[in-house]
Amino acid sequence: MPVVIVGSIALDHVKTPMEEHSNLLGGSTSYASIAAAYYAPVQLVGIVGTDFPKQHVELFQSRSIDLAGLQIVEGKTFRWAGEYFWDLNTRKTLSVELNVFEHFKPALPDSYLNTPYALLGNIAPEVQLQVLEQLKQPKFVVADTMDIWIENTKEALLRLISRVDMLILNDAEARQLTGQTSLIKAGNQICGMGPKYVAIKKGEHGCLLFGKQPGEFFSCGAYPLEDIHDPTGAGDTFAGGLVGYLASSESELTFEKLKKAVVVGTVLASYNVEAFSMNRMQSLTRADVDARWAQFKRMSHFGDLP
Amino acid sequence: MPVVIVGSIALDHVKTPMEEHSNLLGGSTSYASIAAAYYAPVQLVGIVGTDFPKQHVELFQSRSIDLAGLQIVEGKTFRWAGEYFWDLNTRKTLSVELNVFEHFKPALPDSYLNTPYALLGNIAPEVQLQVLEQLKQPKFVVADTMDIWIENTKEALLRLISRVDMLILNDAEARQLTGQTSLIKAGNQICGMGPKYVAIKKGEHGCLLFGKQPGEFFSCGAYPLEDIHDPTGAGDTFAGGLVGYLASSESELTFEKLKKAVVVGTVLASYNVEAFSMNRMQSLTRADVDARWAQFKRMSHFGDLP
Repeated sequence: MPVVIVGSIALDHVKTPMEEHSNLLGGSTSYASIAAAYYAPVQLVGIVGTDFPKQHVELFQSRSIDLAGLQIVEGKTFRWAGEYFWDLNTRKTLSVELNVFEHFKPALPDSYLNTPYALLGNIAPEVQLQVLEQLKQPKFVVADTMDIWIENTKEALLRLISRVDMLILNDAEARQLTGQTSLIKAGNQICGMGPKYVAIKKGEHGCLLFGKQPGEFFSCGAYPLEDIHDPTGAGDTFAGGLVGYLASSESELTFEKLKKAVVVGTVLASYNVEAFSMNRMQSLTRADVDARWAQFKRMSHFGDLP
Repeated sequence: MPVVIVGSIALDHVKTPMEEHSNLLGGSTSYASIAAAYYAPVQLVGIVGTDFPKQHVELFQSRSIDLAGLQIVEGKTFRWAGEYFWDLNTRKTLSVELNVFEHFKPALPDSYLNTPYALLGNIAPEVQLQVLEQLKQPKFVVADTMDIWIENTKEALLRLISRVDMLILNDAEARQLTGQTSLIKAGNQICGMGPKYVAIKKGEHGCLLFGKQPGEFFSCGAYPLEDIHDPTGAGDTFAGGLVGYLASSESELTFEKLKKAVVVGTVLASYNVEAFSMNRMQSLTRADVDARWAQFKRMSHFGDLP
């Protein structure tokens, strides 16, 4: 089943202590779409300027990503520059140029309107709501968010949260949104705001998945990596893989299926950070994902007592 | 099979944003011995002053902990005071009074000399070596350490590491000891210094277990807790539970058994931080440990693809 994915499309400049690269394909939609496309047909919604490199369009096309919802308008594409420090966990935004993204009004093509799955990637909640309102019969809608929307547009964000099936956010954001120190309390509290499921990402420490029903709780570790090159887009790749997996079969949406979706997202994100931008994904296959899944299971499962 | 456990015995003063308590039973030997005693007979090695409260001695006795190696000398017991901040992760030492602990020379009673298992709890490496040298036929020796020994007595620490079967340390200490940012590289490098196994604790984020043999790697999450009251002694409880479990059966020491030992340590530590000092352990049973083990497994294991 197809998935509508909306968010930002950017040209990134990324600096780490070892490397520095320019004009990289970036943005929440880009990462999430490439990841989701491993499992489901993707219908992309986004905006770029006329300077957007052809090779990036071709990457989307090579994954059969539907670009009917991609607006190409006169002007420059959204640009972001950031720097990571020695541990690759701390990040500083060096510059942001919104350019054509500033006045983005997503208009879904007719061919997207009956799509059952949607990922409202990290973008202003008002824009996420605009997309949600255009969908005629959404079956499962996932929203991602970040600190600036909690800080600046909380009312719209709460409206959005009350209407989606699943919210994804990180640990600091979950604490900021709820005022709870305990992530368990925060996750349960956010479930009370509307969504059936909440995923709280803990960066290199994995992810907690909460469901509304009693006993619906999953603690997923991160896949331990020896070499990380560029953490940009890890969260978007996680969200994209998760939604793509959910849309990949018509089997019932159980908590067990949600857990597997979280693991798929985790595995895809672990590959993605092994190279800059989406470079690792260029050669990554479903068989690679399966292999790391099995490896992840081997290294994190344990037996019964004694 | 019995376990010799050496380290500090302290009277702690602990302050958190919510509570403050004095004259608490503390110290690495105390926490580790109470934890190990859930699984194996413990032979304690330590020193206290004549001010050491009778009720603390009685707690050890209630767990059948052998106190033949406990020196009670004229003077005051080692005292430590610390404060935890709002997230209960950051800790500040407020004061340290070594007292009788300053000149501690562990002398093992004859009844301890042939004991096969030993935990050299966090204490100066020279003292750990003194204990190790007295053991006549150690089968499996685990050492714990901390930043001040890496900083100040690295040569002795390296000598110790080359002679133990397993080293336990935390993430920051593993990085400090090896100069590696990657914990995977750090763990493998420490295995190369001598021990068959290395456990790198990541606080509230779990633990990584490394073995010397190919494929010997285990990533254990932490048991997610809603309410933490006092994190003091979590690492010592973990180490004690781990060694106690290893000593609890004569089955071969395989990597699978080591993994289970790590989970036992994790579960015991998760209970211990639910109350100040060893208060939670007063009522904790093996059945409680079994129940949380099963719960931990349920919340962290996942199925096969698709």
